Amino acid sequence: MSVSQLERTLGEYLQLVQQTTPLVQCITNNVVTNFTANALLALGASAAMADLPGEAGGFSEIASGLLINLGTPYQEQRAGALEAAAHADAAGTPWVLDPVAVGGLPVRTALLPQLLAAHPTVIRGNASEIAVVVGAGNGGRGVDATCTPADVQAAAYEYAQAHQCIVAVSGKEDLVVTPQKHWFQLANGDPLLTKVTGGGCALGAIIAAFIGLKKTEPNLDLTIATLAAISTWNVAAELAAQSATGPGSFAVHLLDQVANLDAATLIARSKIVRN
Amino acid sequence: MSVSQLERTLGEYLQLVQQTTPLVQCITNNVVTNFTANALLALGASAAMADLPGEAGGFSEIASGLLINLGTPYQEQRAGALEAAAHADAAGTPWVLDPVAVGGLPVRTALLPQLLAAHPTVIRGNASEIAVVVGAGNGGRGVDATCTPADVQAAAYEYAQAHQCIVAVSGKEDLVVTPQKHWFQLANGDPLLTKVTGGGCALGAIIAAFIGLKKTEPNLDLTIATLAAISTWNVAAELAAQSATGPGSFAVHLLDQVANLDAATLIARSKIVRN
Amino acid sequence: MSVSQLERTLGEYLQLVQQTTPLVQCITNNVVTNFTANALLALGASAAMADLPGEAGGFSEIASGLLINLGTPYQEQRAGALEAAAHADAAGTPWVLDPVAVGGLPVRTALLPQLLAAHPTVIRGNASEIAVVVGAGNGGRGVDATCTPADVQAAAYEYAQAHQCIVAVSGKEDLVVTPQKHWFQLANGDPLLTKVTGGGCALGAIIAAFIGLKKTEPNLDLTIATLAAISTWNVAAELAAQSATGPGSFAVHLLDQVANLDAATLIARSKIVRN
Repeated sequence: MSVSQLERTLGEYLQLVQQTTPLVQCITNNVVTNFTANALLALGASAAMADLPGEAGGFSEIASGLLINLGTPYQEQRAGALEAAAHADAAGTPWVLDPVAVGGLPVRTALLPQLLAAHPTVIRGNASEIAVVVGAGNGGRGVDATCTPADVQAAAYEYAQAHQCIVAVSGKEDLVVTPQKHWFQLANGDPLLTKVTGGGCALGAIIAAFIGLKKTEPNLDLTIATLAAISTWNVAAELAAQSATGPGSFAVHLLDQVANLDAATLIARSKIVRN
Repeated sequence: MSVSQLERTLGEYLQLVQQTTPLVQCITNNVVTNFTANALLALGASAAMADLPGEAGGFSEIASGLLINLGTPYQEQRAGALEAAAHADAAGTPWVLDPVAVGGLPVRTALLPQLLAAHPTVIRGNASEIAVVVGAGNGGRGVDATCTPADVQAAAYEYAQAHQCIVAVSGKEDLVVTPQKHWFQLANGDPLLTKVTGGGCALGAIIAAFIGLKKTEPNLDLTIATLAAISTWNVAAELAAQSATGPGSFAVHLLDQVANLDAATLIARSKIVRN
Repeated sequence: MSVSQLERTLGEYLQLVQQTTPLVQCITNNVVTNFTANALLALGASAAMADLPGEAGGFSEIASGLLINLGTPYQEQRAGALEAAAHADAAGTPWVLDPVAVGGLPVRTALLPQLLAAHPTVIRGNASEIAVVVGAGNGGRGVDATCTPADVQAAAYEYAQAHQCIVAVSGKEDLVVTPQKHWFQLANGDPLLTKVTGGGCALGAIIAAFIGLKKTEPNLDLTIATLAAISTWNVAAELAAQSATGPGSFAVHLLDQVANLDAATLIARSKIVRN
């Protein structure tokens, strides 16, 4: 697939999300619930924060996509997350794991193997978190990355093939590693994204919306859907940064730009290199 | 009461809220706590998120009004909600039930009968949720309505009289059904309200502020207080939409417009039809 | 120390925060997590909401500073807070206690003595809350102050010396009482701060960022660090209010102004009286 074909497909997938309103189940941390739901609504998706044991599993069967983010995994949410992951796996619901602060913090680190056993479709995190997941080293001081995507690329490459999942690593340039023995570098985005809490967490939900298209579009390419999600978020961030006067107004403009982004702009602005 | 009298009363009630700062206890979901508290503060009310067992009941006796919203009813909050509802009922604190996603999700659905037994003053939800409460059908896919206010109007009419409560159904046009055998249609609002998470949840808290006036104004008409709350929120939304460039800026402007709304503007812009 | 020396030091401490990115652990209520994290990021600090038992204690050893805020102290968070306070005390991590609604609400009031036993570096609250902590009277109706800083000044003065901690009381003018037998009045700020939820809660986190400098700057004056935090927040609020059209836009501008504040502006605008 040439780059121009890839970019056309990004635009098609954005339009599909806008037209079909995928329902994204979010099991996420209590810092970013609001921003995440608003990001999904701005995108044109639908959001449901169904994370209770006794509800989460059944819901993950009917949801288009599922996000499990380990930012504040309270006891009840941990049970809900395990339930949802198992049901999503069984029902074929594509799902995203965002392993926030694994390695550094023991409770969520202990939960990680059980979640990985439920076959996440995409694992998304910063390089320190991905290093823990793929066995490339140890984590940082909680939420901050202390290594770069390049540091984990080789191990992520092995992991993606061994486990047949997509690994997305955020950084100055983002890295997406696929089970098909290739990888992509994405060069969009803006430093202001690191000055708003939940920028990465919301992206996890947006990836879940795009890969959740698979339920109604069996021919969907999950790797391109992941790239489309990241590019959508990062291109919107670039546009938002143009009129922002600081991180407060940036976050507001970001939601506006996600809502107003069209396929042509996404195609024209996305910077993706395939290797 | 003529429509012009009704509208004058809407304005009086808005001024009463602004002058007396009713204290609203919110037992609500963790997606919308911040937006809900900010909506109440913008309105001129005071907000307290007291939902712990051992605290919620005592607080609901001194609060002006109470909101119980079932968006993310964790175990501890379920206990707090039942405690608060019982104490509010006994103490004569007007309260709003927002039965988020009942029907579709089992844990909150199981909680519903116990909450209804504590005599909510107002039940507010989308048509799918109200359908479950009043027995008019079954719910939707979580937070999205799959039926319209018209579909549930007859059953809501029966329910309101049988249980002596007000039923408020959100939709393209909002519907308020009263125990006095009449109903109202409200035509204000803006589609952007559906693109911000917690638009309906925050409205539940604003209704609690308006009906909470009853504690110091025994002659308050609870139906008109409910109409005033909905019109305040929806008129502010219309004004906010005029200068918004997307859902992010709309949410910011909405809080500004709630804070700046005066009685004259509310009276001039509200569109309510009585039947 | 003359006032001009004091003000120069405020500016130096702001620059230190911006240059060294202190890591602030926040154990705070679920209404303000997002706004608090965004305030810390805007300031140039780093935020981690690590409040789980089994994680909170270890994290408070490596964090620069810790905030414990009692706004919504669920059972699991209470255990995490006690663990974090004990470890912070043992490890020499400076920490801030924000005793939200103590006195009025029993569960958090019962927790208070155990937290005080772990030697908070700074206790920050409204006058009603501080009255309960220092034994000057009883609390208000939850989150609202029913007395003024002047009402609690004498008792806070005794408490600060007896317990070797700093007491910061918010009000129309803020009051900071030190263990060194003097006190400060701070006259910056804007009434819009009371119309945004979490204004005081976020300030608690910002104080934790400034006093957290102590870990790498042993000569840091904790009192001046506290004054610098309050002045930073309140000067940013004044600047934000100049362009706000209501509480919604004020909150957005506030984050922008915190991010854009420089030492010279802080020095020029801060209004502190020492007694």
